Amino acid sequence: MSLHFNKETLLEYVEMIFPQIRGEFQIDHLDNGLLIVRLLVHERHLRPGGTVSGPSMFSLADISVYLSVLAAIGPEALTVTTNCSLDFMRKPVSEADLLAHCKLLKLGKSLAVGDVLIYSDGMDKPVARATMTYSIPQAK
Amino acid sequence: MSLHFNKETLLEYVEMIFPQIRGEFQIDHLDNGLLIVRLLVHERHLRPGGTVSGPSMFSLADISVYLSVLAAIGPEALTVTTNCSLDFMRKPVSEADLLAHCKLLKLGKSLAVGDVLIYSDGMDKPVARATMTYSIPQAK
Amino acid sequence: MSLHFNKETLLEYVEMIFPQIRGEFQIDHLDNGLLIVRLLVHERHLRPGGTVSGPSMFSLADISVYLSVLAAIGPEALTVTTNCSLDFMRKPVSEADLLAHCKLLKLGKSLAVGDVLIYSDGMDKPVARATMTYSIPQAK
Amino acid sequence: MSLHFNKETLLEYVEMIFPQIRGEFQIDHLDNGLLIVRLLVHERHLRPGGTVSGPSMFSLADISVYLSVLAAIGPEALTVTTNCSLDFMRKPVSEADLLAHCKLLKLGKSLAVGDVLIYSDGMDKPVARATMTYSIPQAK
Repeated sequence: MSLHFNKETLLEYVEMIFPQIRGEFQIDHLDNGLLIVRLLVHERHLRPGGTVSGPSMFSLADISVYLSVLAAIGPEALTVTTNCSLDFMRKPVSEADLLAHCKLLKLGKSLAVGDVLIYSDGMDKPVARATMTYSIPQAK
Repeated sequence: MSLHFNKETLLEYVEMIFPQIRGEFQIDHLDNGLLIVRLLVHERHLRPGGTVSGPSMFSLADISVYLSVLAAIGPEALTVTTNCSLDFMRKPVSEADLLAHCKLLKLGKSLAVGDVLIYSDGMDKPVARATMTYSIPQAK
Repeated sequence: MSLHFNKETLLEYVEMIFPQIRGEFQIDHLDNGLLIVRLLVHERHLRPGGTVSGPSMFSLADISVYLSVLAAIGPEALTVTTNCSLDFMRKPVSEADLLAHCKLLKLGKSLAVGDVLIYSDGMDKPVARATMTYSIPQAK
Repeated sequence: MSLHFNKETLLEYVEMIFPQIRGEFQIDHLDNGLLIVRLLVHERHLRPGGTVSGPSMFSLADISVYLSVLAAIGPEALTVTTNCSLDFMRKPVSEADLLAHCKLLKLGKSLAVGDVLIYSDGMDKPVARATMTYSIPQAK
């Protein structure tokens, strides 16, 4: 399977359709089997004690699977999340970026399933895991 | 079971420990069996097309279960989310507030489980559902 | 919405297409908003200590949502489970039947979502909750 | 971390405490990072059309995480499942065994989280994925 984007064009495309995420994310790696997305952690992502908030981790997991699906199927802005499960397993390291390692487990005609492990930059055990299902609109 | 807070004191307490959420949420109803939390939808919660974003719905579900647990056990700021599952079922109504209806299904010594249905204000079918598990720190 | 089956014809239909479940389940209640399915607990459903096994509870939740979908859309034997989340919250009562209370939260053209609370017969707090997503094959 | 069991003693121990699963499972691989459990597929695991049933896949995922936890912490028969999420992604191959590849993502003092990919023997894409949370009883 060849990808429809590279790291640069994929981020550009998503920031064009979702301008509000500009400056939030960076793509560290993209190939057929793995996408690595970095959440550039700022003050607004933190909870008291310096830990990254749950909604920030949800956003990171969600965008990672979305980007993986787009890379595989090409621009389909209407793709929507239908289901997610998340396990929060460890406290993120204070003030470190978060890295989401995302693999597509399924890319069907109408449903895609992506698996995500989230790490604090520099830590070897995951802080969270997520699975996201995306519904892909049918070509008319 | 008597509650440790009423609508006003519960919101005050949570806004004190999480000042960054001030102005985001309102508590519409609180009794032993049901908590209703309102997300005051602003521009920053929206996605293109006027729909409320996934992370905003995650935040609303998360805070609703957190508030339900605090109402039941009293101030325990360290309570943390360990797991969640979410189903996004319908597109939220453009620019309407979201209402989370939350019930605690379990309140054990170390784990609490809350179930949430999220509605667009004025709509009778839920836009999303969520289940959240919280871990409750053990008294020393 | 009128239903395609009543309690008796719904069970008959499902036992015809899945003969291996004969004698396992009973339908206690069926209307537009709620389906109650009873797992007739036998020795083979138990774990040491007399508690009902996880797979038995999964089966009960799964069949409950399947039956709810069939009641609403009519005979579509190919409908398949795509996702489930389950929380096991309390130990089932030894040797009591289990009752699944199932509500359809969404019935779309291609996806249905059902929510289930499972009770030990005679107990007022749920032993488990489940959400199941079914994919509905498109009419050709 | 050294394991408390090898492939043979782990299966023996679990079949001793759950005699009803004798002959269902086999352990193909066990080391610090990965456990592979085989479901020996029989007639009773099948649905019409020859596909393996959902409850059979749930059982396989559940036992895999249970075995992984026991291998890591030693015999603790009381360990219980508190949460699971499952995605069913492809139809299993008719009459092939199923293989669960299980990794422990977290092994805390009170909670363990295991991730499972399920394959039809001989197929390279997963038929299902699961995450299971186990609660570990506290030493008195």
